[in-house]
Amino acid sequence: MAYTDQRIQDFLEFLASSEPTPGGGSASALGGALAAALVSMVCNLTLGKKGYEAVQGEMEAIRARSEALRGELTRLLEADTQAYQRVMAAYRLPRRTAEEREARDAALQGALVEATEVPLAIAEKCAEVMSLALPAAQRGNRWAASDAGVAVLLAEAALHGALLNVRTNLASLRDEALAQSIRERMTALVEGVEGLKERVLGAIAQAPR
Amino acid sequence: MAYTDQRIQDFLEFLASSEPTPGGGSASALGGALAAALVSMVCNLTLGKKGYEAVQGEMEAIRARSEALRGELTRLLEADTQAYQRVMAAYRLPRRTAEEREARDAALQGALVEATEVPLAIAEKCAEVMSLALPAAQRGNRWAASDAGVAVLLAEAALHGALLNVRTNLASLRDEALAQSIRERMTALVEGVEGLKERVLGAIAQAPR
Repeated sequence: MAYTDQRIQDFLEFLASSEPTPGGGSASALGGALAAALVSMVCNLTLGKKGYEAVQGEMEAIRARSEALRGELTRLLEADTQAYQRVMAAYRLPRRTAEEREARDAALQGALVEATEVPLAIAEKCAEVMSLALPAAQRGNRWAASDAGVAVLLAEAALHGALLNVRTNLASLRDEALAQSIRERMTALVEGVEGLKERVLGAIAQAPR
Repeated sequence: MAYTDQRIQDFLEFLASSEPTPGGGSASALGGALAAALVSMVCNLTLGKKGYEAVQGEMEAIRARSEALRGELTRLLEADTQAYQRVMAAYRLPRRTAEEREARDAALQGALVEATEVPLAIAEKCAEVMSLALPAAQRGNRWAASDAGVAVLLAEAALHGALLNVRTNLASLRDEALAQSIRERMTALVEGVEGLKERVLGAIAQAPR
């Protein structure tokens, strides 16, 4: 059963357990999905509301994207757990003979690529959620501005949480060219969201009630 | 049905909808509960593990507290929605006569007190989760250190998200003495967690693998 088909109580129970999955990567994906849902909520509380006629098209476009991101982040929640399980399975492969060691090594490196790409994708989706929270806070329903604020806060935390997992797996990755390109994507990602949180929170502080 | 008895997919759907509840307060409580669960997970991955004999008692104590906080945050998730619904119900009360206006006003002020206290309690629990993530990252299972990192990130975001809701309701609260005491609790809270995230992330960066 997919994690997102589980009850919240049960998912929290699995997370807290001594099973290594689900872990921080999946929790980050869920944090990002909560943020995406909050952006959609701000749009839904703005669409069709008096006084917001001028931003209907913009809010529809934001909602289309935040709903797509919500779907992607819930899929990545599952993918992160599978990627981590693949890494653990590779670590458990036998290594008595040279052939076994070689096969284990190849399996491990393949699994590590996936276990790096998945949290990086989570972080990239979270960055996009952050960028959607800004116009939602600035021009969406003023009564829901604080929801856009919670969205940007949770998305930023989830972004950095996912990057912790990228770094962990990157340390064991031997393909230096790939590792370098991932490091560059991480840097671009962090630079791309710089100041976004402060701008969203600034927009909320100014929202007249 | 309690929100935490719902499937994750369904909760995300309710959050995204044009219904004002659940909103950012409940999402913050869930973010805090995810963080508390991750702290418990680090403890569970440390208890009974070779090399960690010296910290068994400490990890048991942390887990007892993080599990209690997880329970409290899931209860506050429901309470936040109820508090907000009470505020909305008060706003909808009739105000044609002086008596009606007076009754509406009393109902509104009572509801606002609760709608301020609940997110403040969420923020206070999140601060405690942050303080538990530090010893978990420093002395818990090194393989799970990044999970303690995700915990501190999500708990900090949830803390500030909950405070956005406190501030929103505080603005309409007329009991100035109460408002002042709440402002003081907010300041103490933010000061109390200062530097915690950086210390947790620093401990992770140093964790030898």
